[in-house]
Amino acid sequence: MPIERIRYLPLRGKITDAVSAAQCIQDGTNLFISGFTAGYPKLIPQELARRARAGERFKINLFAGASTEDTVDGILAEAGVLAWRRPYMSDRIMREKINRGDIYFKDDHLSSLSEQVRAGNLGTADVAVVEAVCITEKGHLIPTMSVGNTPTYVREGRRIIIEISDLPIELQGLHDIFIPEDPPYRMPIPIYRAADRIGKPFIELDPNRVEAILFSREQDRYPIFHEPDEVSRRIAEQILDFVRHEIRKDRLSPTLPWQSGVGDVANAVLAGFLEDDFFQEIEIYSEVLQDSVLDLIDIGKVRAASGSSLTLSDKARRRFFNEIYRYREKIVLRPVEISNSPEVIRRLGVLAINTAIEVDIYGQVNSTHVMGTHLMNGIGGSGDFLRNGAVSFIVTPSTAKEGRISAIVPMVTHVDHSEHSVDVVVTENGLVDTRSLTPRQTAEQIIRRCAHPDYRDMLWDYFQRALKERGGHEPHVLEDAFFMHRRFMETGDMRPR
Amino acid sequence: MPIERIRYLPLRGKITDAVSAAQCIQDGTNLFISGFTAGYPKLIPQELARRARAGERFKINLFAGASTEDTVDGILAEAGVLAWRRPYMSDRIMREKINRGDIYFKDDHLSSLSEQVRAGNLGTADVAVVEAVCITEKGHLIPTMSVGNTPTYVREGRRIIIEISDLPIELQGLHDIFIPEDPPYRMPIPIYRAADRIGKPFIELDPNRVEAILFSREQDRYPIFHEPDEVSRRIAEQILDFVRHEIRKDRLSPTLPWQSGVGDVANAVLAGFLEDDFFQEIEIYSEVLQDSVLDLIDIGKVRAASGSSLTLSDKARRRFFNEIYRYREKIVLRPVEISNSPEVIRRLGVLAINTAIEVDIYGQVNSTHVMGTHLMNGIGGSGDFLRNGAVSFIVTPSTAKEGRISAIVPMVTHVDHSEHSVDVVVTENGLVDTRSLTPRQTAEQIIRRCAHPDYRDMLWDYFQRALKERGGHEPHVLEDAFFMHRRFMETGDMRPR
Repeated sequence: MPIERIRYLPLRGKITDAVSAAQCIQDGTNLFISGFTAGYPKLIPQELARRARAGERFKINLFAGASTEDTVDGILAEAGVLAWRRPYMSDRIMREKINRGDIYFKDDHLSSLSEQVRAGNLGTADVAVVEAVCITEKGHLIPTMSVGNTPTYVREGRRIIIEISDLPIELQGLHDIFIPEDPPYRMPIPIYRAADRIGKPFIELDPNRVEAILFSREQDRYPIFHEPDEVSRRIAEQILDFVRHEIRKDRLSPTLPWQSGVGDVANAVLAGFLEDDFFQEIEIYSEVLQDSVLDLIDIGKVRAASGSSLTLSDKARRRFFNEIYRYREKIVLRPVEISNSPEVIRRLGVLAINTAIEVDIYGQVNSTHVMGTHLMNGIGGSGDFLRNGAVSFIVTPSTAKEGRISAIVPMVTHVDHSEHSVDVVVTENGLVDTRSLTPRQTAEQIIRRCAHPDYRDMLWDYFQRALKERGGHEPHVLEDAFFMHRRFMETGDMRPR
Repeated sequence: MPIERIRYLPLRGKITDAVSAAQCIQDGTNLFISGFTAGYPKLIPQELARRARAGERFKINLFAGASTEDTVDGILAEAGVLAWRRPYMSDRIMREKINRGDIYFKDDHLSSLSEQVRAGNLGTADVAVVEAVCITEKGHLIPTMSVGNTPTYVREGRRIIIEISDLPIELQGLHDIFIPEDPPYRMPIPIYRAADRIGKPFIELDPNRVEAILFSREQDRYPIFHEPDEVSRRIAEQILDFVRHEIRKDRLSPTLPWQSGVGDVANAVLAGFLEDDFFQEIEIYSEVLQDSVLDLIDIGKVRAASGSSLTLSDKARRRFFNEIYRYREKIVLRPVEISNSPEVIRRLGVLAINTAIEVDIYGQVNSTHVMGTHLMNGIGGSGDFLRNGAVSFIVTPSTAKEGRISAIVPMVTHVDHSEHSVDVVVTENGLVDTRSLTPRQTAEQIIRRCAHPDYRDMLWDYFQRALKERGGHEPHVLEDAFFMHRRFMETGDMRPR
């Protein structure tokens, strides 16, 4: 019986339906929701979209942990009820509206939003809506497949709406909830190994602020990542080769934890460990845990896997739910300010692997804006990991759109991560360790090793011209720095006809 | 008697002259020296320059804490004996050679070099040359006016040359030497307040690796910063107004420590506290401590001042030397990996103030490369503080070169700090808090409030054109993004004739 999931009896009186519950969300409400790729509420967003379709005119400001996919971001964007959205999204309709200026969006490092909320920089936390598998005897919340910013939202939210999901109750024990102190008087975050549990397995909740409780049978829906293709596999192989080499040379410890961003290449890197004999047991200190983590646990290769979200394909999810007890020994889900904590990432010495839209010959990275102007998804956690990892890898296929776009360009059209945050650049063609190279040496090597053969000559020609005509520590010809982008915008191809 | 400064008697046998001492520095030597604006060795660099002038051909790789001014960087660059230089410099001759590609240079976050050296990424530490005021009874070193990377260089250096300075012996007790652990197994850096001392007042030294000891009467020489001018004062006033306002609104704690980069504006900000009644006692957690810190201590306004270097005018230096006992109660000098530690800066919640060469309408910052190509000094500690501060300020006069260059541009020609690391932009004309603004709103406000009136219309026109022609989350017209820089390169003025 779903009602048994509310073990704190006084709260059973708060059970209601979405229509009544959502009444406290009105024009101007700051709405803070659970969700980080997975684990977002579903009923309240649907109700808000319904109200908008029924003709009600209102705008709210929406804050989550990260992306909430079509189920929340998509339908609310389409309904036209969003004034602001932070800190990250990946929905097509929302993206279009942000790029038109119809939805306000500011790109934040994922690790930093909770602290901003606690400091009051985002305004009052009017309403928090969170998904949970149950409410404990003491009245605390057990989250579902992600933690994100939920602990802070529940602490700060003036009114709280809870959507009780029908996911397995055995998720209890998966989470480790710790809200760090805020400046100026605060102690370190006491994580010294990827597996360390430093908090409580529940989110503390003030029952007096609970506005409503709903029962939900809705499931997370998100795009499923593909099996690694040839390009992803070659990128992954090179990273593993490089790290093995550095370990053999005694420049890296064999026990550093791994972070791998979201997506196919990231998944391929972890899949690479499946057929590897060098690494016996790895630790993962990452953000979003995907299918490959379960595969690695199954063959005994994972000592610990820490993240803020468990984002699994349907097949993997069934496997996970069948044996939660076993996986729970290895997996811990944390608030994103802990999974992405610069302090912890730096202390542990994380090997950080993140993808880019484009990288330039000097190693500057664009992770967010297509052609410099149009937001793709947002910076997400890439800055948290790149800037603080022991070795930071930027990975990208060397081309996109069937070769019509080169991911290696003379100058990126937008910079999210400067060359100072990037150690190693990898495409399917090659790998460059920039740590002991001057910018000019970096340019030579990135052009020769990383760029696609179709683009090597034009990049080399640009670099030589910049050297000769302008010189300097990082030669550029400013008036031609974007010549490849301009050609693409004119002809649909960065290559000449 | 200078010999009494060598209290560990076995080392007295190592006293020699610079000619003999420098014999261990040959072609290909990796040379690691003390020095961080102040506190660099002087005799060995002079001897190396002399050898080069006498016709000897050799090249060395030079690593320091930060800049070492004309006394080291200048004469060694001029002598043509440098292959590599890291991590930061500010010498005119060296800058020219770096920009010609004659000296190899890679720009590092200052906090990160020591760890790289310990990991072996920079090659073997062949020779360390360090300035000290004395060698203790146990054979340990007391540094002079800076710490920088010296503790790691002394620990890793295969041969060590010590230049005993004639600076006051009372400098003993000023320093707090702590080398953090390296990944993967390391504990937090246990600093919880700016004043905390966590290490030892000396640098541990293996006497067996001491190659030579020299006595030196050479003094640090560096450019002296000016008294605050009107522009610096107006920038400083706005920052203090803003912070006061945030404290009154309870969004900032009144006890957050301050960091202020190197230079006139930075000095002006601290000078601003002299005539302020709101802040009773401040803490400083910074990198280079300048004259203004002594002034503030004198009027009882400083609870603690932490840095890696004490860089004083001649006048202030005399004052300091006369009363070291008193100042030592307030001032602590640390290794730069501690003064600039991302972990500590973030924990303490530092208010970070750093300067820029140029800032663009979306808040992207160029701190290093003039016209995108020519290195000025290097990124220094700006990234350490900006990326980790509780509130990060980027400050710059709105124009340079008598108005011919605007520091606010459509797109910066090089990015060191992305908009994600920058909270507040300040010029003498105005201040913009970007934390709750979309990029488009940021652009509007930076143009209206920060840009110089001479440039406002052309920036506004560019932004409007970008909005109309391209749109997107951060509108840009790629082919015109550098139109102001191109005009300057053609006519010597960013303004039209």
